[in-house]
Amino acid sequence: MTAYRDMTTEDLRQAYAAACNEFDGWKALGLKLNMARGKPAKLQLDLVSDILTVLTDAAACSADGVDARNYGELQGLKCAREYWADVLGCRWEETFVGGASSLTLMYDVISKAFTHGLRNSKQPWCKEETIKFLCPSPGYDRHFRITQSFGAELITVKMTPTGPDMDAVEELVKDPAVKGIWCVPKYSNPDGIIYSDETVHRLASLKPAAEDFVIMWDNAYCVHEFEGEFQPFEDIISLCAKYGNPDMVYEFASTSKITFPGAGISVMASSKDNITYMTKLMGVQMISYDKVNQLRHVKYLKDRAGTLELMKRHGKLLAPKFHMVLDVLDKEIAPLGFADWIRPLGGYFVSLNTMPGTAKRALALCAQAGVTMTDAGATYPYGIDPNDSNIRIAPSLPPVEELEKAMQVFCTCLKMAALEKLLNERTGGVKNVGNEEAVLS
Amino acid sequence: MTAYRDMTTEDLRQAYAAACNEFDGWKALGLKLNMARGKPAKLQLDLVSDILTVLTDAAACSADGVDARNYGELQGLKCAREYWADVLGCRWEETFVGGASSLTLMYDVISKAFTHGLRNSKQPWCKEETIKFLCPSPGYDRHFRITQSFGAELITVKMTPTGPDMDAVEELVKDPAVKGIWCVPKYSNPDGIIYSDETVHRLASLKPAAEDFVIMWDNAYCVHEFEGEFQPFEDIISLCAKYGNPDMVYEFASTSKITFPGAGISVMASSKDNITYMTKLMGVQMISYDKVNQLRHVKYLKDRAGTLELMKRHGKLLAPKFHMVLDVLDKEIAPLGFADWIRPLGGYFVSLNTMPGTAKRALALCAQAGVTMTDAGATYPYGIDPNDSNIRIAPSLPPVEELEKAMQVFCTCLKMAALEKLLNERTGGVKNVGNEEAVLS
Repeated sequence: MTAYRDMTTEDLRQAYAAACNEFDGWKALGLKLNMARGKPAKLQLDLVSDILTVLTDAAACSADGVDARNYGELQGLKCAREYWADVLGCRWEETFVGGASSLTLMYDVISKAFTHGLRNSKQPWCKEETIKFLCPSPGYDRHFRITQSFGAELITVKMTPTGPDMDAVEELVKDPAVKGIWCVPKYSNPDGIIYSDETVHRLASLKPAAEDFVIMWDNAYCVHEFEGEFQPFEDIISLCAKYGNPDMVYEFASTSKITFPGAGISVMASSKDNITYMTKLMGVQMISYDKVNQLRHVKYLKDRAGTLELMKRHGKLLAPKFHMVLDVLDKEIAPLGFADWIRPLGGYFVSLNTMPGTAKRALALCAQAGVTMTDAGATYPYGIDPNDSNIRIAPSLPPVEELEKAMQVFCTCLKMAALEKLLNERTGGVKNVGNEEAVLS
Repeated sequence: MTAYRDMTTEDLRQAYAAACNEFDGWKALGLKLNMARGKPAKLQLDLVSDILTVLTDAAACSADGVDARNYGELQGLKCAREYWADVLGCRWEETFVGGASSLTLMYDVISKAFTHGLRNSKQPWCKEETIKFLCPSPGYDRHFRITQSFGAELITVKMTPTGPDMDAVEELVKDPAVKGIWCVPKYSNPDGIIYSDETVHRLASLKPAAEDFVIMWDNAYCVHEFEGEFQPFEDIISLCAKYGNPDMVYEFASTSKITFPGAGISVMASSKDNITYMTKLMGVQMISYDKVNQLRHVKYLKDRAGTLELMKRHGKLLAPKFHMVLDVLDKEIAPLGFADWIRPLGGYFVSLNTMPGTAKRALALCAQAGVTMTDAGATYPYGIDPNDSNIRIAPSLPPVEELEKAMQVFCTCLKMAALEKLLNERTGGVKNVGNEEAVLS
């Protein structure tokens, strides 16, 4: 195959006709495939469903002298705190175990920063003129939306193969209105990048102008290798302390992609002072989280070693899906030279950059052919990708055979959108399929 | 026995000496008894522990075509919404099923009112100069604390035997800064009062100046009779709609005192428009609540009828405790004429009003003798009871035999505190036991 940019206009026209033909074929199948969200597949849920039977006896509901069935222990059962400390490499006193959603704990931190202030805030953020938040992009739309929902100004920071562009971050934090940064340090969503040691150390040693600057360290994929060995990571809590920033980071994780996505347990880890401060604020909104489910999880997962063993089994279910995605891209798109992507070894996504200015159009075509993808732009603040190029592929949910079909459709749509753009640039006049307006030349 | 007010000073002195003697006896026992919180007892937890075994099979985790184990269904499983609609008498579309804590849902509503505004708010409450909230008192300290934590001004409204003083409420809501009222309509915390039909209708038909006035209707004890038949209650959602106030009420309930206090499910019910509005805001902070636990609860409780049957069994465990409390009070305190209390038929508390100016002192004495009670004043805004008189007794946790002892200690302390006050009034000079300072005359 020849790269698009090296083709003659006539070749491009023929390629476009062929792609349109393929597209009509896909449309006729009436598909309904979904690669929009990092949802575990049914086989993964079945893999962990023994968790339903590890705690069935009333007598087994006590831990460390606490009856998990009753009120109390706002910070979580001690054994659950020890579990998370083992997984994250911090101390159990630095953890606060939550309910099914770590996103909710992140929201709680930001929400309370706005209404009450963080531990080192001079005043609640809602009293400040402007609050800015750093959003390494492409990144996770739900992170960005939390800060956006409170009216923070979202500042895009470029992602590099080693993590957020730290030169930019170090410059930006000189502005006292810049109050924090969203980070997914391991298998970043969507790029699947592991932050380099240098990046992690530069983050931990930041000297922001805002005394209450907060690193929102979403370690969502901390044990989520689907290929190769477990990649160890530094304890960000003690690292920040080492650099004189003990209160600067809140780390988050959950079992959403370890046990049940809808019914797991979550954790927030930070300095002991921060945990004490947040516990006081959380105590206004609840008496305690679901400790029965905490105990169920500890009995099932046991510790980091037990968790890693389970994650290997998840990996065996996930790896073929990622391989399928990458194989189809390698075969269908790579030779055409108009898109690139990263080959992750863990996490839940493949991040693809297609020809600038064509991502929205490609995904609109996908939707017409019955394939749902994460919205183009979703990986950028305000849902606007300035290059209209990044697309997040979430291969975990569909079975491999459906995934292959979905990827074929996706590649057809990528090609069509790219060819339309190229042909428009050269000639100015290809009509979009399934779109009333002609593409502007 | 003679009422204290009819005794001679010498009789009072003798009574005080006898009480001090009793007190020393209690202190010597080194007791550690707790009547501070409405915590269910171990026998109640054991009663419902079969819930641990109703959902152990992966294949049983689907409901209405939804796999409860995976992400999704932010508003809750349909069967869980139907369950709550049956219990509360509203429609399932008017419900939003949450996690283990209804308090958290209440906090969410108030928190979002401050940061984003309610559906009919002109602007977020944090932008307003002053926010006032009506607190029928004695009431629930955790309610008051939520609004206090956001800086609202708490306005005490007197509780009457038929609910909040509605003449006062109707007058107060003419102030546009008054944004809402906390209500526990059935077996109110702590009085155990059921709001009369008239009160409920006057609340539903309020015409507040604030267009976003909200009734926080905490139906915490909606099925919580421990004696006598189930007392039906009106559906506050449709009642408010009938009076032209469809968006004025948010109702809350949970299974905290039906199944496990720490691991139940909760509900928020309101107009369909309010639920749609709140769902959008809640969608920023989470993907979904624990649907596995929702399904577990529906399988275990089935419906309102199944729940009421279970509540009768809870009642059989609770009734002897309430009887013990009331019997000891009848015997030890009633003849002395310095305190009164209400005899509840449901809920979790006995509300006692002792001689004004002596509640704090009585509970300080209790603490010295090893009996922990809810702090005096806790049932009033800011923790300050202007009469220093109301004491909340929570008899649910201790076994009956411990409860008897705790109540004996409590009565001794009530008597001592009352006698000290009377003697001071008459003579000005009894030294407090276990207190360095002389009581001021």
